[in-house]
Amino acid sequence: MGVKFMINRAGGLPIYLQIAYQLRDDIISNVYAENDKIPAEDEIASSFGVSRMTARNAVTYLVNEGLVYRMHGKGAFVSQKKLGRTLNKLNYFHEDVKELGKHPSCTLLEFIERKSSQREQQILNINKVQPVLDIKQICYVDGQPLGTQNFIVPRHFVPELKEEDLEHDFFQSYVTDAGYPLETAEQRMESVLAPEVAQLIGVPKEEPFFYYERVSYTKGQLPILLIHTYFYGKKYSFTITLSKK
Amino acid sequence: MGVKFMINRAGGLPIYLQIAYQLRDDIISNVYAENDKIPAEDEIASSFGVSRMTARNAVTYLVNEGLVYRMHGKGAFVSQKKLGRTLNKLNYFHEDVKELGKHPSCTLLEFIERKSSQREQQILNINKVQPVLDIKQICYVDGQPLGTQNFIVPRHFVPELKEEDLEHDFFQSYVTDAGYPLETAEQRMESVLAPEVAQLIGVPKEEPFFYYERVSYTKGQLPILLIHTYFYGKKYSFTITLSKK
Repeated sequence: MGVKFMINRAGGLPIYLQIAYQLRDDIISNVYAENDKIPAEDEIASSFGVSRMTARNAVTYLVNEGLVYRMHGKGAFVSQKKLGRTLNKLNYFHEDVKELGKHPSCTLLEFIERKSSQREQQILNINKVQPVLDIKQICYVDGQPLGTQNFIVPRHFVPELKEEDLEHDFFQSYVTDAGYPLETAEQRMESVLAPEVAQLIGVPKEEPFFYYERVSYTKGQLPILLIHTYFYGKKYSFTITLSKK
Repeated sequence: MGVKFMINRAGGLPIYLQIAYQLRDDIISNVYAENDKIPAEDEIASSFGVSRMTARNAVTYLVNEGLVYRMHGKGAFVSQKKLGRTLNKLNYFHEDVKELGKHPSCTLLEFIERKSSQREQQILNINKVQPVLDIKQICYVDGQPLGTQNFIVPRHFVPELKEEDLEHDFFQSYVTDAGYPLETAEQRMESVLAPEVAQLIGVPKEEPFFYYERVSYTKGQLPILLIHTYFYGKKYSFTITLSKK
């Protein structure tokens, strides 16, 4: 670790943040690879000429950002890179994961036919006697759980769909194959705590998740799917390209 | 609160979640307005015929989602709606806030001229002797703090910019007025903990934030701004429209 970046002691950015930013730059630029040990707090303290507590604060900042993880008595290590998903076109989870050269998979948690709620009726443009399927899955990338997806679909679009069908096929592919290609979607994204999802995928319940609600439309602007997704913040990021219209 | 939605006791979705989802639907559909009290846990328990603990779990779920907040001894109330920002074109924070009929403002935390880091040199396409301005602000909507924005801009683009100029103008408007309209941007979004930002805006440090890093380009695909933004998850959401290409 060479000091490429002068610590500014004259005020402004706190020193622990200046150090954290430099370490972050080194991680993002791959000076340290995934699961590499970053310099110990002692080394950081001596190479920047700061107290051990300042060094510790810098590392804690990176832990909070999800860039490094601590192992008790062993130091801090670079986390697996977040799955960086592009958000410029409508893609399914499993398509994006494959495009990134990784292996997507899902396990089924729930498969229920039930009455719809009032809001579901409004969003999916159905009446209250039309039942919906409520499907919940855990999603994995290369076998590591990322979060959950919950699909609400009016039963009449997929009258034949059985639990077993989802053992071999991704739900959204099934819908497309059933004659309802997804054409557009509206998606609202939030940053939330989701302790029950955290528990399902085995991560600490105080860690943040992306929550997004997506309404997908098939041909003729017909709403067909309401999707609630929780993806683990430490493993997931979105990238989007924006232009001024 | 009428029970419009049958509780399914036959397995599948846990009962507290079914109740939470119904309450969530009622909040989103404005059955309860901002700062309205939602039914007490006793009332929820008796109207759904569940235990008080189940009712409590349903409300806790909504608290975690940021939809309601508890007041000690008084019950749970509907949170202010999140600022729903559209992410389909490149807009500045203050433009979006104004479009939503609200009042944006900023206070300056830092205004430093400094050397750039290696990663900043790569992103902004500058060499190591070209200094950058490092500007950090707290952003407010209708006087309520939402989070922080940190702008890194090569000094040579804004050689005249002084701290005082930002008392009267938004930084991104200043850049546009200086002859560098922003044309495109790439933005990476994450869901993180940010205790130091939480402290700055006076919210609990265990609550999640959106973090996004945006690189903005002016005419000729010239990178001009690197922006690090932290916005409070309970007050912020993004909406995007996607289409299949």
